Amino acid sequence: MDHQLCPKFEKAMTLINKRWTGLIIYQLLFGAQRFSEIESALPVSGRLLSERLKELEEEGIVSRTVYAEVPVRVEYALTEKGRELEPVIRALQIWSDKWVEQYQ
Amino acid sequence: MDHQLCPKFEKAMTLINKRWTGLIIYQLLFGAQRFSEIESALPVSGRLLSERLKELEEEGIVSRTVYAEVPVRVEYALTEKGRELEPVIRALQIWSDKWVEQYQ
Repeated sequence: MDHQLCPKFEKAMTLINKRWTGLIIYQLLFGAQRFSEIESALPVSGRLLSERLKELEEEGIVSRTVYAEVPVRVEYALTEKGRELEPVIRALQIWSDKWVEQYQ
Repeated sequence: MDHQLCPKFEKAMTLINKRWTGLIIYQLLFGAQRFSEIESALPVSGRLLSERLKELEEEGIVSRTVYAEVPVRVEYALTEKGRELEPVIRALQIWSDKWVEQYQ
């Protein structure tokens, strides 16, 4: 780690810094899911979830696959770039298990 | 990792989710520093840095030590709770080195 602040790191922080982004990635670590599944797992409004998923798609972290079924099925999944965020999420989980009081 | 969203994890995400918090912790991994040192290393206003440091102190992540010198010296450092965020920061750095374009 250089003492100089790395611009890539700053960009990555900014990226996961957005409210709900980390939790959406966390949720998608369980596998591809429909919009309604993600929505029911997170305390986030549909409008905001939709916005965040679009941003994550633009960042190449989430892929959106449309299955030509009736009714049409749309699934969101992590790309390779997104899956490789798993160590970040896991490290944060270990830390939170140890240090965060549940009811503070 | 439970499929149910862990409230502790959510709290941890919310905590490092605040703009600059991650970068301040990253900066303090180099050791105890004065306010002016942190300020010159990060592209953040003094007012906001002061606010964030206070919040991190309240969360028990950063300690503030006043040395009775003339002029008075104030140093900020990571507590044990703060230092243990290092794996999170490192994992994020590895990911950003691989996946983030510097000039996007």
